[in-house]
Amino acid sequence: MIIEILTIGDELLSGDILDTNKQYLSSSCWDKGFKVEFHTGVRDDDAAIQEALLKAAERADVVLCTGGLGPTVDDFTIEVAAKTFDTELVWDEASLKYLTEWYQTRNIPIEENNRKLALIPKGGKALSNKYGTAPGVYYAFKKTDYYFMPGVPKEMKFIFEEHVFPQMLKKTKPDTHFVTAFLKTFGSTESELDRQLKDLTHDRLHIQNARIGFRFSFPEISLKVSVWDKNPNKAKKDLEKVVSLIKERVGKYIYSENKDETLEEAVVKKLIAKKKTVSVAESCTGGLLASRITSVSGASKVFLGGVVSYSNEMKESLLAVDSKILKDHGAVSSQCAEAMVRSIQKITKSDFAAAVTGVAGPTGGTKDKPIGTVHIATLCDGRLINKEYHFGYSREMFRVLVGSVVLRRFLIAS
Amino acid sequence: MIIEILTIGDELLSGDILDTNKQYLSSSCWDKGFKVEFHTGVRDDDAAIQEALLKAAERADVVLCTGGLGPTVDDFTIEVAAKTFDTELVWDEASLKYLTEWYQTRNIPIEENNRKLALIPKGGKALSNKYGTAPGVYYAFKKTDYYFMPGVPKEMKFIFEEHVFPQMLKKTKPDTHFVTAFLKTFGSTESELDRQLKDLTHDRLHIQNARIGFRFSFPEISLKVSVWDKNPNKAKKDLEKVVSLIKERVGKYIYSENKDETLEEAVVKKLIAKKKTVSVAESCTGGLLASRITSVSGASKVFLGGVVSYSNEMKESLLAVDSKILKDHGAVSSQCAEAMVRSIQKITKSDFAAAVTGVAGPTGGTKDKPIGTVHIATLCDGRLINKEYHFGYSREMFRVLVGSVVLRRFLIAS
Repeated sequence: MIIEILTIGDELLSGDILDTNKQYLSSSCWDKGFKVEFHTGVRDDDAAIQEALLKAAERADVVLCTGGLGPTVDDFTIEVAAKTFDTELVWDEASLKYLTEWYQTRNIPIEENNRKLALIPKGGKALSNKYGTAPGVYYAFKKTDYYFMPGVPKEMKFIFEEHVFPQMLKKTKPDTHFVTAFLKTFGSTESELDRQLKDLTHDRLHIQNARIGFRFSFPEISLKVSVWDKNPNKAKKDLEKVVSLIKERVGKYIYSENKDETLEEAVVKKLIAKKKTVSVAESCTGGLLASRITSVSGASKVFLGGVVSYSNEMKESLLAVDSKILKDHGAVSSQCAEAMVRSIQKITKSDFAAAVTGVAGPTGGTKDKPIGTVHIATLCDGRLINKEYHFGYSREMFRVLVGSVVLRRFLIAS
Repeated sequence: MIIEILTIGDELLSGDILDTNKQYLSSSCWDKGFKVEFHTGVRDDDAAIQEALLKAAERADVVLCTGGLGPTVDDFTIEVAAKTFDTELVWDEASLKYLTEWYQTRNIPIEENNRKLALIPKGGKALSNKYGTAPGVYYAFKKTDYYFMPGVPKEMKFIFEEHVFPQMLKKTKPDTHFVTAFLKTFGSTESELDRQLKDLTHDRLHIQNARIGFRFSFPEISLKVSVWDKNPNKAKKDLEKVVSLIKERVGKYIYSENKDETLEEAVVKKLIAKKKTVSVAESCTGGLLASRITSVSGASKVFLGGVVSYSNEMKESLLAVDSKILKDHGAVSSQCAEAMVRSIQKITKSDFAAAVTGVAGPTGGTKDKPIGTVHIATLCDGRLINKEYHFGYSREMFRVLVGSVVLRRFLIAS
């Protein structure tokens, strides 16, 4: 089966936004053994869209098309598609009902440009969109299946998972069985992981049909293990074998085997299971650590509270850090980190507590305490770990990395 | 001039890596008035590359091609190009010299697969690569200029800036002058902006060559205004005219005219200029608001501190919220929001303060206080604004939106 991904929008061709939909759709297809052969992108231009749709009909069995489905004047993918497929637009009753209700429940009058979202090419099928007003559209033209989805990633993902992919699977059983595993790691580097795992790649491993891919999402690295075979049981067993070899070597860095689970989600899940509560006192991370923990649904079961003591005065007033510590050692010191962590633990009576104080940059560094210096103190069930690090990254990367160090300590301690 | 960007590589079509080169090249071109009309991506496949190269010759004047220039077995873009252009590969002496020295200085023996990087199609031109071993290649085929660059972003960028773009400029003076403006908005919806501005689009405006594009980055919408004309002064004046019309209509939502400036950056910049200090007391946003403010370099000049009082106990212990308020009205109440904001202002003595308390979901809603309910209280130079909102979004969108409401109030008050 030949798949083409077609993304439509001036904002992509002008580079105003980064096209992440192609990656999502491509990896979703490859993970299940459907290979994507063509990536195409065109502007919000009638003729260009039409040409791309016709070209795809020549060479692809399935076209996954995103963009141009909204209510604005530059959204006309569906109109052009109808013209290209030589059919007319008709009202889809279910979509119109959904749209009308959507506006009614929000007490917003529905305008004509919103109503037009319920128009689909005659003979096509609307694909409901839980997260937005524009439905997706399925249309079969000649021998090619076209799936039109909105460009908004969340809506696109919903429609793809809910409608498109199940329909693709139903229509075409892939002749090869793919199985994949994700191992999400934090705390190691690419070169270290590569050194540890390089003899496991398909060149040398006795399991020929295996592949280990590295995916980066600073400061984390995910290992994507793919194994394929005509026999689904063999594929599954081979995958287990490769995964267990990887775990033997780099298991201590793996925090999750769920592709979509973030480090904070893994931590909160484990803290809930172990019935541990946490609190944080932040200086250089400025609330980002608390924000990451509370981004997880259910965090209120474990997270009691936090203090962002950005100025020295706040370290004294909110956390009662001794002014002598600040005077003698400065705010970026192991003494201050310890005082902060002990104080927040005492105030909240949490099982685990953390405090971070450092220089995020790009200004504020000194000779003694250059940009990137940070003291990270954790107090988990009474056990203090208090270490100094030097992370020479940008402000935002520094803040994320500092938070991840705390999260990993919570994970290990729980 | 019609530009096509062609990226080559299995790792892109499989979604293993995100294609950021297309965005970089596209925006580099558009910013200088060169429009990119086509995005194409194919696998490391002889026939597919050949077809893509030939298709580009039919429709594009310039092809920017990245990927497949390395030393490994799946790097054969240049070989396929030579075959497609019906020419042979010849040694480029300068590249060979550079390569030989590169390996000598690193004391690594040079292998045949490394040497082959100095082979280029006869009649072409090597483009030196400061950051890697594979040179770029320029080749003119029929009426089309092909520029081949490595896929590694750093090397691609160097070759593009150093060789490709200057040559494009020299060969083709853009006959049209493009000028663009960015207006970043928060607080309105796409359809409202569209209604307000639709008669300004090129269909109806007396300024024919103007276009208003919408760019979304929840919860913000940016307006990109492009104007083009043969006369650069006319283009500039027309742009000013369109921008001033837009400002008349939706000016109150515009927080910045700098494409790269975030809402928090605009707010922090203004707070610094007005010498205002801020503090925040967060419940449902869990530190995200503090984190957004402190993500801005220089935030320490304005941000004093914050409290993440997630649990009721913490609202009492950290913010001294009266337990009677919590008992009588609950944590999600206007009374609690007011107590929180007054308390954090008193503790920090900041000029501006904010408090938010609500139900982020996806659980925790009740009939009286459904998911999405939030009370946002701000106290700016003594003036209290305390309002209830209902934001029916996902947990993460809810948290971001609540923070943005606070930031906008700070912006208006300062």
